[in-house]
Parts: sequence; C-alpha cells; structure tokens
Amino acid sequence: MNKALVVLSGGQDSTTCLYWAMNEFGHENVSSLSFDYGQRHKIELESAKKVAEIAAVTHEILPIDTFSVLGGNALTDNIDVDDTQEASHASQLPNTFVPGRNLIFLTFAAAYAYQRGINHLITGVTQTDYSGYPDCRENTLSSLEQTLRLGMEYAITIHTPLMNLNKSDTVLMAEKFGAMDAMAYTHTCYNGEQPPCGHCQACLLRAKGFAEADRADPLVERFQFFQD
Amino acid sequence: MNKALVVLSGGQDSTTCLYWAMNEFGHENVSSLSFDYGQRHKIELESAKKVAEIAAVTHEILPIDTFSVLGGNALTDNIDVDDTQEASHASQLPNTFVPGRNLIFLTFAAAYAYQRGINHLITGVTQTDYSGYPDCRENTLSSLEQTLRLGMEYAITIHTPLMNLNKSDTVLMAEKFGAMDAMAYTHTCYNGEQPPCGHCQACLLRAKGFAEADRADPLVERFQFFQD
Repeated sequence: MNKALVVLSGGQDSTTCLYWAMNEFGHENVSSLSFDYGQRHKIELESAKKVAEIAAVTHEILPIDTFSVLGGNALTDNIDVDDTQEASHASQLPNTFVPGRNLIFLTFAAAYAYQRGINHLITGVTQTDYSGYPDCRENTLSSLEQTLRLGMEYAITIHTPLMNLNKSDTVLMAEKFGAMDAMAYTHTCYNGEQPPCGHCQACLLRAKGFAEADRADPLVERFQFFQD
Repeated sequence: MNKALVVLSGGQDSTTCLYWAMNEFGHENVSSLSFDYGQRHKIELESAKKVAEIAAVTHEILPIDTFSVLGGNALTDNIDVDDTQEASHASQLPNTFVPGRNLIFLTFAAAYAYQRGINHLITGVTQTDYSGYPDCRENTLSSLEQTLRLGMEYAITIHTPLMNLNKSDTVLMAEKFGAMDAMAYTHTCYNGEQPPCGHCQACLLRAKGFAEADRADPLVERFQFFQD
C-alpha cells in the first residue's frame, strides 16, 4: 500500500500538491494534515478545511502551541508584517521566518504518518519562491528525509512536486490535476483579508503567477462574482 | 561567545550532561530547557527544575501539546508500561516509543537556540542504552545536525557527551563534573514513584550503573536518610 499524507496550509501551493498526490497515489490513499501553530490568520486553517472538503480527503489539524514561546515573529505575533522583507536577524531572513518551522512541521507529520502506516509525505515547498527560506530548499529536505528515516527506522519519502517550479508552472499544474475548484477557496494574502488585499507581497506573487500562466485566478473570480 | 543549551529531562543522563556543559562552556554560558509533552509523571519536570536550581542555571519549560494527538504510547497515555519491552510496532521498538520524539525535541531546542544566539545543543542520548531508540543513535544525530544547519542556515552543533558511554562510565563522569548533589534529585523510575520503585527496567539499569561504578546513588541515599 502506498498511502500518502499532504501537509496542507490552505494556500495555493499545498492545494496543488494535494491534487498532485491524488493523481500520483490514488484518491483513496491520500489524507491531509494542517498545523495550528497560532498563526495570526485563522482563515488559513478554514481554507485548508474547505480545500480538503472539496477534494473529499481526510483532514486533521494538529495543534503546536510551542511556537508562541519560541520567540517573536510576524506570522504568529500581533505585529506588522514587513512587506519590504527586511531582515529581522543577522542571517538576512525576512521577519516572517520561524526558524526551522518546516522542519518541525514535517517531523510531526512524519511521526503522524508513522503511526498510521503512511510512507509518503507531500509538501508544497519551493526553492524558486522569493522568500529564500532555507528550510524549503531541496538540500534541506533531502537531509531531513535521511534524518527521519534514520530516527524512526522507517522508509518514509518526502515529495516536493513544486520544488523547482515557478508560480506560473504551479498554476498550470493545478489546472492539469483538477485543483481549480478548490483553488477558489485557498488563502494567500499576508494581511489575512478576504477578499485578498491585492497589494501585499503574497497577493502580488500569486497574481503574477496566474497572469504569466494566462489563467484567471478562481479566488479572484469568486469575489468578483459577488461584487458584480 | 560559545553559549550552550542543555536539553534537561530531569533524569540521570541529562543532569550529567548539564554539568559536563558547565565544565566545557563555562557556567555563565549554559542554560537549560525541558519539554512538557504530556508525560505521565510530572515529577520529571519537577526534577529538571530542581536540578537546574541546584546547578544555578536558567531553566525554561516548553509545552508540546501535539504529542497527545499523534497516537497512543505508554509514556504519554494512561496505559501500563510494558516492562518486558515487547514491541508495539512491527519495527520491534518498545511501546514507550514516541516515533521521532527526540528529533522533535532537538528541532524545537534548535529553534529556541537560534532565537537566543546559542550555537551549542547538548543532549544526554546514548546508543549504548538498552532501549535501542533509533533517534538516540550517533548517525541519526549527525544527520539531524546537518538538517538543522541547512534548514536554519545557522552553525549549530549537537553534543552527545554520553553517546558511547555505559551507565557506569556515566556515573563516574557525573562525579568528575560535580553532578552528585543534583543527582539526588533526578528522576528515573518508569513508574513515576518517589522513592523509586526499584524494580522497573529504568530503576534496575540505574542501580546496575552505580553498582558497577562502585558508587552510592545519591537519590537512594536521600530516601534512606528519611527511612532510617
């Protein structure tokens, strides 16, 4: 049996990965997992739930309270997101960075998978993203896969279908695997607005991807429908 | 600056490591961290607090609520500990095993260290232990160190002073670095008893180590004092 677990943030990328996984492993073999780590915008978790519902796959939310005591960062604390992406730390990372966040998510996801006999983890990370998060890069994920295999004595594989794709390619992949209906309920806006603010870095990047792929964004269309 | 963080469980091994670190990095550069992951015996955290107090180092407790939803295991659920160490999983691990637990602890500890400019992590894991936990082995820890360095872009080093020591050597190391006063307040008993039950695997292993090192266990002496 090839059971697969998709780490679902409720965003465009992980939603695309969910449909990729359904194509790769078969719909009945795919489940999804989100993390409630005290993110400022609960709409992310609502989006993940809605996406899983549309895709008709199992979805669970794991709480991680620990982040709140680890130290300040813009995505969990109630401080302004710095759109200029200036560094909050000497290593020149944007101030939305929770150090090792993805490592923590994926290690929890692996432990969850282990308990359920799931051997495949799918995450929507990409190293072509503007953010430059070191825990989203291919060499980090390869090293983590090795660590998890050794540390759990378990043959787990981490899949990163979007690793080397740009946003435009991701849009075309979403279309190819039938993710566009769910895409209308994904969340991207850094400011947590619905309809999306349209001017934060995340909204601009999303719009650029759809424009370059020459496709309409189902999320934008959903709100335009109500506005017309 | 060489600041160091000791992952302190309140047991014999991590207490020994705390004193090792104070010798290695200087008392003023050492702090300690414990995890509240829903362990059945709160005495472990009380022991950690007491040990840090005796050592006069900073001590923080990070909550990890996530374990409780990951799945059943004897150290967090209210079920009997299987002293015969029979496997609860096909891979022949004892049923006290939380898959990847150490990976999760150390990744959180690394994120905590990153935020505070600490470059050295110390953990009391040992591959000579009877338990055979794969996340306590040298190759796993080396791989994790590499993953953390890549994933956080941060020069962090994981130290495992007890990795290849047996329990008797650990007792002698504790004595060498002045850990014996604190040792009287460590917790080992799997059954969470105080005074320790003396017949569980953990108590037996501890007693064997002290016997082989030809030293009295300060924990046992502390209770004998009251019983006499």
